[in-house]
Amino acid sequence: MIRFNNDYNRGAHPAVLQALAATAGDSFPGYGLDPWCEKAADQLRALTGSPEAAVHFLVGGTQSNFTAISAALRPYQSVVSAVSGHIHAHETGAVEHTGHKITPLPAKDGKLTAEQLAQVGESYRTSPVREHITQPKLVYISFPTEYGTVYSLRELQQLRAVCDRYGMYLFVDGARMGYGLAAGDVTLQDMARLADLFTVGGTKCGALFGEAVVIVNPTLKPDFRSYIKQNGGMLAKGWLLGVQFSALFQDGLYFDICRQAVELAMDIKAAFAARGIPFYLDSPTNQQFVILDHSQIEALEGKYTFEPDHQTDAEHMCVRFCTSWATTPQEVQTLIGDIQKL
Amino acid sequence: MIRFNNDYNRGAHPAVLQALAATAGDSFPGYGLDPWCEKAADQLRALTGSPEAAVHFLVGGTQSNFTAISAALRPYQSVVSAVSGHIHAHETGAVEHTGHKITPLPAKDGKLTAEQLAQVGESYRTSPVREHITQPKLVYISFPTEYGTVYSLRELQQLRAVCDRYGMYLFVDGARMGYGLAAGDVTLQDMARLADLFTVGGTKCGALFGEAVVIVNPTLKPDFRSYIKQNGGMLAKGWLLGVQFSALFQDGLYFDICRQAVELAMDIKAAFAARGIPFYLDSPTNQQFVILDHSQIEALEGKYTFEPDHQTDAEHMCVRFCTSWATTPQEVQTLIGDIQKL
Amino acid sequence: MIRFNNDYNRGAHPAVLQALAATAGDSFPGYGLDPWCEKAADQLRALTGSPEAAVHFLVGGTQSNFTAISAALRPYQSVVSAVSGHIHAHETGAVEHTGHKITPLPAKDGKLTAEQLAQVGESYRTSPVREHITQPKLVYISFPTEYGTVYSLRELQQLRAVCDRYGMYLFVDGARMGYGLAAGDVTLQDMARLADLFTVGGTKCGALFGEAVVIVNPTLKPDFRSYIKQNGGMLAKGWLLGVQFSALFQDGLYFDICRQAVELAMDIKAAFAARGIPFYLDSPTNQQFVILDHSQIEALEGKYTFEPDHQTDAEHMCVRFCTSWATTPQEVQTLIGDIQKL
Amino acid sequence: MIRFNNDYNRGAHPAVLQALAATAGDSFPGYGLDPWCEKAADQLRALTGSPEAAVHFLVGGTQSNFTAISAALRPYQSVVSAVSGHIHAHETGAVEHTGHKITPLPAKDGKLTAEQLAQVGESYRTSPVREHITQPKLVYISFPTEYGTVYSLRELQQLRAVCDRYGMYLFVDGARMGYGLAAGDVTLQDMARLADLFTVGGTKCGALFGEAVVIVNPTLKPDFRSYIKQNGGMLAKGWLLGVQFSALFQDGLYFDICRQAVELAMDIKAAFAARGIPFYLDSPTNQQFVILDHSQIEALEGKYTFEPDHQTDAEHMCVRFCTSWATTPQEVQTLIGDIQKL
Repeated sequence: MIRFNNDYNRGAHPAVLQALAATAGDSFPGYGLDPWCEKAADQLRALTGSPEAAVHFLVGGTQSNFTAISAALRPYQSVVSAVSGHIHAHETGAVEHTGHKITPLPAKDGKLTAEQLAQVGESYRTSPVREHITQPKLVYISFPTEYGTVYSLRELQQLRAVCDRYGMYLFVDGARMGYGLAAGDVTLQDMARLADLFTVGGTKCGALFGEAVVIVNPTLKPDFRSYIKQNGGMLAKGWLLGVQFSALFQDGLYFDICRQAVELAMDIKAAFAARGIPFYLDSPTNQQFVILDHSQIEALEGKYTFEPDHQTDAEHMCVRFCTSWATTPQEVQTLIGDIQKL
Repeated sequence: MIRFNNDYNRGAHPAVLQALAATAGDSFPGYGLDPWCEKAADQLRALTGSPEAAVHFLVGGTQSNFTAISAALRPYQSVVSAVSGHIHAHETGAVEHTGHKITPLPAKDGKLTAEQLAQVGESYRTSPVREHITQPKLVYISFPTEYGTVYSLRELQQLRAVCDRYGMYLFVDGARMGYGLAAGDVTLQDMARLADLFTVGGTKCGALFGEAVVIVNPTLKPDFRSYIKQNGGMLAKGWLLGVQFSALFQDGLYFDICRQAVELAMDIKAAFAARGIPFYLDSPTNQQFVILDHSQIEALEGKYTFEPDHQTDAEHMCVRFCTSWATTPQEVQTLIGDIQKL
Repeated sequence: MIRFNNDYNRGAHPAVLQALAATAGDSFPGYGLDPWCEKAADQLRALTGSPEAAVHFLVGGTQSNFTAISAALRPYQSVVSAVSGHIHAHETGAVEHTGHKITPLPAKDGKLTAEQLAQVGESYRTSPVREHITQPKLVYISFPTEYGTVYSLRELQQLRAVCDRYGMYLFVDGARMGYGLAAGDVTLQDMARLADLFTVGGTKCGALFGEAVVIVNPTLKPDFRSYIKQNGGMLAKGWLLGVQFSALFQDGLYFDICRQAVELAMDIKAAFAARGIPFYLDSPTNQQFVILDHSQIEALEGKYTFEPDHQTDAEHMCVRFCTSWATTPQEVQTLIGDIQKL
Repeated sequence: MIRFNNDYNRGAHPAVLQALAATAGDSFPGYGLDPWCEKAADQLRALTGSPEAAVHFLVGGTQSNFTAISAALRPYQSVVSAVSGHIHAHETGAVEHTGHKITPLPAKDGKLTAEQLAQVGESYRTSPVREHITQPKLVYISFPTEYGTVYSLRELQQLRAVCDRYGMYLFVDGARMGYGLAAGDVTLQDMARLADLFTVGGTKCGALFGEAVVIVNPTLKPDFRSYIKQNGGMLAKGWLLGVQFSALFQDGLYFDICRQAVELAMDIKAAFAARGIPFYLDSPTNQQFVILDHSQIEALEGKYTFEPDHQTDAEHMCVRFCTSWATTPQEVQTLIGDIQKL
């Protein structure tokens, strides 16, 4: 079985495992107060060109999202998200569990537009009954989105401008940040200039687990460790996170392995296109959503894993093929051969 | 100024005020444990034909809604509501503040359909990743809706059937229950047979304040008073609620005064229709949503209060005219005269 | 039956009822945006000598407490309270329901000391593992306390000094404020100078219901109405609160009726003392806690209501006699006569 | 530096690391739905003699505690804990953040007594104002406690009996379960018979991270995975937990390594006792609390890490020496040598 079902079905990049093995016998202070976390944070501050940023390492994505949102908002403030946003669609109401409404906006390709945001902001600003509705205070976007699409630098700048106009925070969920950076014109430095806070995902990008939370806006920095602890995200042996991220940030490994995954995904994309298979949408990253008929699914499902997304009509289904840092060129060539035979 | 802006801009029906005055010198046990609350609860149990129902009296509507929902749901369970539902659109995220997601469904006239509900229920039932989404456990509808529309008995029965199929609770927000009962083919007995719990509103139907919460489903009854207290809804001088509801339930007063308000609204509706003024939707209750142009608004706004709902185009606005238990036939005749001159 | 069981077993002072009756036919804007609320707020700002204070009127005490605390605190911040504090002992975990820990401190007479507070503040300030504990950010005291005791001006100043030293808010629950002001050397102006926010209770001090929340600290003012709505405390017919408080604040009525209740309580206290009956503690306000034996209880309970507080030994019980604005000198004379016969 | 400061300052037992390495190249389904988690759950069901138990693997202790408590309780229900309980003293109000009060009971040695519990249960059962207080529904104990003490089988049986009498759940926090089992007369089978749910800690007992939650009471099993996801405890690469626990449960490794740590702690204890150094309390497990004077602390702190617990008087401090699965006999011998020289 060759696995294209998701980007978190294998352990970690060899360099990460080696780094863990190299420190396995050592003893460290707990709770993220160790030299490895400090080193990884410094690396990330350098990579983002943001020497003042606060950097924290948490275990998981849902945890990072609701911890950050719970820390940023007052009880009557809400989150704006695409209807397909991970916090809205895949996290069991974790954000609402912390007390905050999510206002979902329609977004076929998973992206919010500045116009949508401006409408939300303006609607609250001009509401004559403001105290009867929540204040849209934090804009959640994912980069890349759940559909593999990415915001261009210009689009991000436009979102930022709207956030500035209405006093909203821009929070970027970067669970797949590495794949997004490989696909568009946005850099980590841009991210640090444009977002108030964002995450840099490890789990799907070469680590066993771990998400870095980068807080740029000074308002959001105080006592963030208290929020981490309260929300169950403070790993006792926190150095396990620092060691992994430090290995990933060494010599650009994080970016290289994600770029390769995206290149391989582009090869798969080209093969589907050459075969005349339609796409659900145009994704430039490691997730490709194609529309297959039942016979095509049958032809591939014995040899490859891939993920059903949704039925498009009685005969067709949209499915996801996903590469990762662990995908090999050989695996992709085999798949391409079989796509050509469909 | 003649007031048609809402149905809660005047105090209370004279019979309610007299009942309050008659008991003003008496002394009672607190927190709703008085004979008047018991009497009003008995009256409501009789009116609903539900001798086993638990009846509680709270002060306000938002409070009643989130208290009941918080009591009914486990943390991972969510509420299904029309996008225009009061809990979703007008209560400052109060339900989410108690930790629960609301899934809003589109509904132009404020009503959910059994088909929509069935889709939500089926989608959860068949989800392969159920633990990543919330369980749609409680269906919130308002009767009448925020747009003055009502469910027919048949529609309610269909919703009930879907709720039974998927193990969902049906919660009916009856903040304007009296007006809804006057307009369609649904009775309080139907409500008690079809809903798991519902409210019977006093604030907008002749009382100074107060909402009755009627719990029919035995699962939802235990320790409900603890939820009321925890959520700030337990009035120290609870007899003020019992006295008011008891007066309203005496000799059908509640139903009579609401019926008259609906009849007066029908007169207004007929006048607008006769004048060729379009309606936003067809409402059979005390709230009428008409689409006026700016000159028509100008012609009426010096003499009447009415409420802007939303801009429909550059020249027109949807506005609400609302009658209440306090509206007099004279007030309505005056308005009709002016409508005819538009 | 002559009632001394509590101070909320009768309706409202005649002046309050008259004010309500006088406005019963009028129409008002809803949700507290009416001229009566504005007038009452102005009166209270004048009485507190705090022209910049934000004043809001809510229905109930529990509601006011958790709304204010929820508005003031970040998720990792906690409340310090006497173990006998109302929020800790009598509100069904309402504060915790909003997500905040209460740290209870021992306090036999219901009062916190500056030393206790300083210890809590210092302990957090110097904690090497601060992120593992909550930040004690808000100090809750009641004035008078649940045991009828009051803080002296000097004691309040000392608490304030500790709050300043450790960056803590001082919140005063004034559900019985009128009785407290009548008993000690503290004025409403002192309250406004020393507390960050406090309540002035109506329910137990002459109104049918209602608590005024006075916010002095500018940090706590923004969007407070959103918190009120979210927490179910926004009365649709808000003018009912404004009318009542306005009547109470007219010509010092609020202070006069509470002072009389305290004077009558002092008469009762003197009678018990003269008869050699021991007190649970020395209360200068309208609540008197005396320790009676079973025969004494039996002798009084047929004619008077009073409230059991706790068993003190096999033979004795601590019970509360409580006067109110509604207590008459005749009622007290009758009781004194019977105390003398014990 | 030889480390006795805590039991989570080193990675994992070699067998755990080898198991992780052996599966490093494999691909698995995510979110704990993999064969390793299933295997480890089966092992634990066998070890507890509880074939029907639900077993889940979470990452951290705080997370496991608040997830389980949030799943078990209704909003008005509260937790009873020793004042030294981890959830009360060291988790930043995480339980309150989910909406539940913790009622702390005094407990010098970290243990609750059946008498204390019975008093709490009886007090609620007989309360005339039950709706004004929270229902004590879940009893939290830690085994061993934060002070290293353990409940005897008889004590656990007594707690269970009280829980049965008052309808309370017994929840055992077993973050250090292995050390507790090595010290007293309680077995995992006893635990499964007497508790409603409990955890078996990995983080402090040989794993890199991970806590097993064992749910025995059928009421608490449904949809627990939804709670895990909602609370951020569902590890994407969940097999990392299954692999580790499976290695620990193989051939009794978990029990062996914890037993050795306890034996080494007993050697240290004996050395302190022989030297006449007083103990804060009598602990039979891997944590030893001794009272040292400043010169003794100074003599040891250059060569060993140990943790200050609290100042006992101007000259003395209570400090903790903690062994773990990673402590070697040589390290302990060296320490003993230095203790003898104090």
